[in-house]
Amino acid sequence: MPEYFDVDTQPFCADFATWSSFGATADGGLHRLAGTAAHAEARRWLAERLTETGARTSFDRIGNLFGRFEWMPGEPYVLIGSHSDSQPNGGRFDGAFGVLAALHAATRINRAVRAGTVVPRRNLAVVDWFNEEGARFSPSVMGSSCFTGELDTDRMLRASDTDGVTVARALTETAMSGSEPAPVPSAYAEVHIEQGRELDDSGDRIGAVTANWAVRKYTVVVHGEQSHTGATSMADRRDALVGAAQVILATREVATAYPTDEVLSAVGRIDVEPGSPVVVPSRVRLNVDLRAHNAERLDDAHARLLAAYEAITAAGETTVEIAACAVREAAPFWPAGVRITHKAGADAGLPVREMSTRAGHDAVALSRVVPTILAFVPSVNGVSHSTHEFTRDCDLLAGVDVLTSIAEHLVTSGPETDRSAP
Amino acid sequence: MPEYFDVDTQPFCADFATWSSFGATADGGLHRLAGTAAHAEARRWLAERLTETGARTSFDRIGNLFGRFEWMPGEPYVLIGSHSDSQPNGGRFDGAFGVLAALHAATRINRAVRAGTVVPRRNLAVVDWFNEEGARFSPSVMGSSCFTGELDTDRMLRASDTDGVTVARALTETAMSGSEPAPVPSAYAEVHIEQGRELDDSGDRIGAVTANWAVRKYTVVVHGEQSHTGATSMADRRDALVGAAQVILATREVATAYPTDEVLSAVGRIDVEPGSPVVVPSRVRLNVDLRAHNAERLDDAHARLLAAYEAITAAGETTVEIAACAVREAAPFWPAGVRITHKAGADAGLPVREMSTRAGHDAVALSRVVPTILAFVPSVNGVSHSTHEFTRDCDLLAGVDVLTSIAEHLVTSGPETDRSAP
Repeated sequence: MPEYFDVDTQPFCADFATWSSFGATADGGLHRLAGTAAHAEARRWLAERLTETGARTSFDRIGNLFGRFEWMPGEPYVLIGSHSDSQPNGGRFDGAFGVLAALHAATRINRAVRAGTVVPRRNLAVVDWFNEEGARFSPSVMGSSCFTGELDTDRMLRASDTDGVTVARALTETAMSGSEPAPVPSAYAEVHIEQGRELDDSGDRIGAVTANWAVRKYTVVVHGEQSHTGATSMADRRDALVGAAQVILATREVATAYPTDEVLSAVGRIDVEPGSPVVVPSRVRLNVDLRAHNAERLDDAHARLLAAYEAITAAGETTVEIAACAVREAAPFWPAGVRITHKAGADAGLPVREMSTRAGHDAVALSRVVPTILAFVPSVNGVSHSTHEFTRDCDLLAGVDVLTSIAEHLVTSGPETDRSAP
Repeated sequence: MPEYFDVDTQPFCADFATWSSFGATADGGLHRLAGTAAHAEARRWLAERLTETGARTSFDRIGNLFGRFEWMPGEPYVLIGSHSDSQPNGGRFDGAFGVLAALHAATRINRAVRAGTVVPRRNLAVVDWFNEEGARFSPSVMGSSCFTGELDTDRMLRASDTDGVTVARALTETAMSGSEPAPVPSAYAEVHIEQGRELDDSGDRIGAVTANWAVRKYTVVVHGEQSHTGATSMADRRDALVGAAQVILATREVATAYPTDEVLSAVGRIDVEPGSPVVVPSRVRLNVDLRAHNAERLDDAHARLLAAYEAITAAGETTVEIAACAVREAAPFWPAGVRITHKAGADAGLPVREMSTRAGHDAVALSRVVPTILAFVPSVNGVSHSTHEFTRDCDLLAGVDVLTSIAEHLVTSGPETDRSAP
């Protein structure tokens, strides 16, 4: 941390308590689904804080919230931020920490710019991306992927939740959309909890993300035949839920067939038709998640998964169909960004560990189009997507310091830095 | 069929087409959940038809609809009927046939009573029991079990569907409740499709039900720990859906361990928390259905089920809890009723087969408190709880004839018949 920044640890902790109160669960977690009243309330508070700090706030069409510090009209922006939506009964750190860290980092840098101790060559904006979690509206990483052009905004505005409410309607009803275009980015930086236990186990304090894992997300449909749970002969059953149970266990076995944590798999969601206690299910839809460190390993696991599903179909009772498969390629992050993170950690006296990210992040979407830095802080026992998620205050404050250093570096660097992206 | 009844086959078939139109699915089934607009529309039509025929209609507090032919004020009633609600995407015969058959049987008998060719010693009422299926509101066989006192009406009125709508509210909003007490019964008769393939396979035309199977319905909860599908180490997972998949397959294996169809099992419904594509489930609730011909066999299967669930818990990843278990005892039906069904079949030239019922019915609830007769007609391939459920017109008409004979017998019999119940 350069000495010219004020150290405001108590304000950060107080702000984090307020920020965690919007959609708080009784046991210290967050239930703040994208586009809900709790989410809107949190973002109104954030927008007020940004305005007080001297930023101009606006939403874009897909509900991304920007707070611009425009020191040099016409210049592109260094974006820093994360997302403020959570999983159902999720944790208060995932995403939310990165947004608040960005508010505090930007506040410090703006103060230094106004004081003349930092001379910027880029503008700075805080961003709170819409619907990173994908819990209410699918797919995840929606706002940042619309920003990068990977997803189509008009199509995403028509996506709907299980009650048939569209993204467009949720954004309009909560006053979270706008018509102003997003700022033009020169670089993006995000600080996030690790959501794994590598830092917690190693004792390192900051993770410098060098690459993201390869991911496949499948929509699997198991077809059977509706009948009576209590009257239909066992010989006549084509029970789609039995087929789905075989899919769930086969999906688990594909991951555990590899050395520990080279491959991860899970089924997170399952929809059963018709779902009556006395009816043998006719159709089950499952969301299958498969991840590996690199493309070769994922392809190998994918082939095993297909073979296991085909074996279920071949057994004759049900038919397993892969209705859709979305692929996120493994890719390296900006090498210069990893070096910038190392330097920021060293300046603050924090041991830095290079690592890849298994989880998806807004930074993964951004890394495809602009120089992007993703830094991790430790998560106790690697718990995440749970109310038990926990990161110590000292690690949060270290994360704010590192993000401040990174953002200062990006804001004061010229085009030579921007262009060095892979 | 005694000769003094008019044979009105065409009116029955025309009525059945109309009756099947309320809540019809595109492929010839019914989606007519209890307490919905489609259900109310069907029952308004039925009430009009009953009124035209000379019956006085009324609802009781739990939404059972009665159409009384009160020839002898003060005397108890022979009740005939079934239920008009269906499973989600269910068939048009299950329950609905028995109600319409009762309307037609009562119409014939009332005409004969008015003409003086039948001399009644009991009154007659058609009944359409509320919520036999239990698909929207749990438990099933609700209206008839409130009638018999096995379930508490006030408690059932507070039962709610997955949207939080109570039975009381659904009944009020659809004008399907009333304050008039139900008629005092002397006997009950019901005709229903078999929902199995014994009649269809054997070529017999009428089933005389001698007993009902023993049934256990379990609410099973699998406890795990919420985490991230893509970041949490496989070693740290406590995936409740993996445990649920093991429960589903263990439940299947308990049934298939016995000779074919001595034991039936299934999981019809599953609720996953939190149910997000990228969250490892923390908690899964399952509805498990286990049935056997007699108590000993069911106890044996129950013990195997418990052992299998305990083995899943013992494996250490998840905990399987049996949160509730409802038992329906195996019991014989009224022996004199079986003889009456045999005679009705013989009079109509229809081969009768004695059999037990695997499925629950309003008649099973009634059999505990009044002399009860349950007669089956064939169901093609035994398909049920499905839009593919099918019974031929000739079998429907045979069912109406047999029910008419049975009802006439009960109406003209004295107290000596009523009291011969087991």
